[in-house]
Amino acid sequence: MQKVKFWQIKPEIRILGIDDGPFDRRARGTVLLIGTVFRGGRWIDGVLSTTIEQDGTDVTERVVGMINRSRHRGQLRIVMADGVTFAGFNVLDIKAVFKQTGLPVIVVSRELPNMADVRKAIKHLPNWRERWRIIKGSGKIYPVRTKRRGASVFMQFVGMRRADAEQVVKLTSTRSLIPEPLRVSHLIATAMVRGESYGRA
Amino acid sequence: MQKVKFWQIKPEIRILGIDDGPFDRRARGTVLLIGTVFRGGRWIDGVLSTTIEQDGTDVTERVVGMINRSRHRGQLRIVMADGVTFAGFNVLDIKAVFKQTGLPVIVVSRELPNMADVRKAIKHLPNWRERWRIIKGSGKIYPVRTKRRGASVFMQFVGMRRADAEQVVKLTSTRSLIPEPLRVSHLIATAMVRGESYGRA
Repeated sequence: MQKVKFWQIKPEIRILGIDDGPFDRRARGTVLLIGTVFRGGRWIDGVLSTTIEQDGTDVTERVVGMINRSRHRGQLRIVMADGVTFAGFNVLDIKAVFKQTGLPVIVVSRELPNMADVRKAIKHLPNWRERWRIIKGSGKIYPVRTKRRGASVFMQFVGMRRADAEQVVKLTSTRSLIPEPLRVSHLIATAMVRGESYGRA
Repeated sequence: MQKVKFWQIKPEIRILGIDDGPFDRRARGTVLLIGTVFRGGRWIDGVLSTTIEQDGTDVTERVVGMINRSRHRGQLRIVMADGVTFAGFNVLDIKAVFKQTGLPVIVVSRELPNMADVRKAIKHLPNWRERWRIIKGSGKIYPVRTKRRGASVFMQFVGMRRADAEQVVKLTSTRSLIPEPLRVSHLIATAMVRGESYGRA
């Protein structure tokens, strides 16, 4: 599938940022998944919620369904995800999300994952080879410096050009080192589970 | 209790905006209550969540508890509420919130409530005279024009001066006719119950 070429990144480009809620690793069950629709790094246009299985394999299907069924669908231009693993090791297939929604996907992580540790952790799970294949297929990892001062974050992407992805990550990181659509989805998901959440800069 | 006198309203004054989630009037049960901590009308600092009883009498106690237990407590300066009735006719006693938290409260409504209709609706509920007393005690209703164009919203307040309350309502209505802490709490609460929410200007 061809890349989406952005003529320009508008300051209020609509972005869906996805993060999961906290959960108890010892328990089994469903985990909350939140999507926040942002205009650039400024305004919240809406919120989406669904659930996924802890260490399951349903996150890709859930994200695609949430997007394609949404009334926000027509306005959305980009999907962002906080890493590619949710609810433990439920792995988001960003290429499949791009193919099935038509929307480019940017993955942002605060830290570089230790791939050896990830591989070791998923090896006891069903379909681990498929999970590993998806993780490895998420594309090259690039550092992005979102603020003049402060550490870099790390970015992967599919369906768009690197320069566009980098511009979107920088544009939306208005409040902290990470994009607002991800920071706010994290705050919402955490509050739903724990009763309260706090920002960090 | 004495009014809080603000020397100045800082652009990033911390405000907790409270709204409830949608619910089925035919069903009985608990209803989601969301508090969003905003800095002025710009940034989300955190989210709080609790539940209240449909047509119950626990909203005041729940709101006070949520605030006083919160790690945000020390930074909060003002509480905002979307009307005084939540989850049906669970009535928020804003004077009690002020007394028990020390924080002034501003109530914002899009429309003037029809008091005769409210009275009629609550009359079949237990403790209806007490509910009515709290509603009547919420103070005088003032129109506020938050945008140069567009309709007025309506404001009640306790624990602060009218001019300060009006300034806070205007300062925080950055995106729409109503303050961001209320608009966003509404978007979050709706998405948790219905799976999706949409802004309106």
